[in-house]
Amino acid sequence: MSKFDIEISEVGPRDGLQSIAPIMTTADKKRWIKALADSGIPEIEVGSFVPAKVLPQLADTAEITQFAKTIPDLTVAVLVPNLRGAEGAIAAGADKITIPLSVSETHSLKNVRRTHEQMLQEVREIRALIDTLPVAERPKFEGGLSTCFGCTLEGNVPEDKVVRIAEALMEAGCDEVGLSDTTGFGSPLQVRRLTQKVWDAVGKQNLTGIHLHNTRGQGLANALAAVEVGLTTVDASMGGIGGCPFAPGASGNIITEDLVFLLESMGLKTGINFERMMIAREILQQALPGNIELYGFTPDAGLPKGFAMATPQF
Amino acid sequence: MSKFDIEISEVGPRDGLQSIAPIMTTADKKRWIKALADSGIPEIEVGSFVPAKVLPQLADTAEITQFAKTIPDLTVAVLVPNLRGAEGAIAAGADKITIPLSVSETHSLKNVRRTHEQMLQEVREIRALIDTLPVAERPKFEGGLSTCFGCTLEGNVPEDKVVRIAEALMEAGCDEVGLSDTTGFGSPLQVRRLTQKVWDAVGKQNLTGIHLHNTRGQGLANALAAVEVGLTTVDASMGGIGGCPFAPGASGNIITEDLVFLLESMGLKTGINFERMMIAREILQQALPGNIELYGFTPDAGLPKGFAMATPQF
Repeated sequence: MSKFDIEISEVGPRDGLQSIAPIMTTADKKRWIKALADSGIPEIEVGSFVPAKVLPQLADTAEITQFAKTIPDLTVAVLVPNLRGAEGAIAAGADKITIPLSVSETHSLKNVRRTHEQMLQEVREIRALIDTLPVAERPKFEGGLSTCFGCTLEGNVPEDKVVRIAEALMEAGCDEVGLSDTTGFGSPLQVRRLTQKVWDAVGKQNLTGIHLHNTRGQGLANALAAVEVGLTTVDASMGGIGGCPFAPGASGNIITEDLVFLLESMGLKTGINFERMMIAREILQQALPGNIELYGFTPDAGLPKGFAMATPQF
Repeated sequence: MSKFDIEISEVGPRDGLQSIAPIMTTADKKRWIKALADSGIPEIEVGSFVPAKVLPQLADTAEITQFAKTIPDLTVAVLVPNLRGAEGAIAAGADKITIPLSVSETHSLKNVRRTHEQMLQEVREIRALIDTLPVAERPKFEGGLSTCFGCTLEGNVPEDKVVRIAEALMEAGCDEVGLSDTTGFGSPLQVRRLTQKVWDAVGKQNLTGIHLHNTRGQGLANALAAVEVGLTTVDASMGGIGGCPFAPGASGNIITEDLVFLLESMGLKTGINFERMMIAREILQQALPGNIELYGFTPDAGLPKGFAMATPQF
């Protein structure tokens, strides 16, 4: 019996902290990441290998990655925007590196000033770099299909375009692709339809994860659609921090705590101990700079009377 | 082509306002209800026929009901706790009256100091009263299955008990029953399973509605499950007000604005004009006493660029 039915990938240390101007100390990040792992969260996106002047909040990503790698059984994921970032990620020992590619080229040009072809060239170079490593040391290399449910600049993003970019990412050397509702445009129908279309193009084993936002309150409804259609990794952020760097304070990411309750209430094991997750939340609340308000309904309400987590509590 | 795929029943004027200690003026209630109806919301629960000393916030329910009845095409719903309340509702001309019955008898005794049998006797007497009216003047009479997903006092509520109470309500004279997740315990699996079990017992045509809470953030995921299993009426509250009278400020009800976005994003017509709904929200914000914060992600984020409502906008 597997420990997980659904793997939650906690993105708060990267997506959450990059959205908050004040900088969490390296020591606090380590405490928080350790507590997250202790609660049973199987994967944590611990940072992003971008220049410190772009995101000073994540300037310690190499050190954090190395620290996280000392935690047993934790998948240490990082974001990289390009080959240079991948070099840093590999040097630090990351288990998984994700390069986001905006399916909306307007968004790609605005965000990273690169065309699709330029981004695909980065992917090819990262693949070549990874292939120089011994097989056992190669990180998993994911291409993130950003803005694949719609774009704040372009509006509708055609699904056939998402499929083409997914194929191009795989051809350029990614091990897998992931769906990302960067803008919070997605609906449950889109989640199902797009998952199926990308599966048809690149194979079911090569798309297992989704990154959802709660921009219009639809995050957990979309997560429900995602896990029921058969995706098995769902990104979420403790306290719902982050997900929307251009709208500080707005809840962007779906909330880890509420996602865990939703999944466990359906009998889906996340491998997470609820009380320990609350300890990690407490550490985050204490360490989070800038008096940012944490979101989350389940932490306020507590678990229902008589509720049994599907995950055996350790 | 029907105007609606899903009918939203707005419960804010009853469930929302009863949860807030300060009292909204009768004039403001009328303005808000008119604006809600103008936005296309097909059904509004405008109040509760309870003694004014119990809920002074709803003391003007008779006047509000009479006012709402002057609005064309609006279904005017009210809550009644007993025969006496039903007499008031019928005198005021309500189109639909709902008597809530807590499937958890502990909760029933604590909340209305009545056993199940005493509540069923009220139902029989209300049925007898309704049957004295000319057929065209009879309100629809619903039995609300409160705490049917679990109880803060009893914990688990057996599904077979929900089914038995649903049958008993129909036998005692209700025209239909509705599911109510009073405590915010429900999961999408429970929503589907319980809907099917009650359908099997009382017939699909006699259970069409559900009242969900967002206590643990699961509200819209449960709504997704509800509409996809085939329920067609979903309660919601503008700004998410109410739903949890014993925890002021807590978001209990699911948020009308976000539910509308979710449904319309799936191509399900609610009959609602989004901009007019925002006007109704603005009126609520101005009229709401006590500086209560309105919830709602979609009002903050706005509709996605290029988004087309499934409902033709009037």
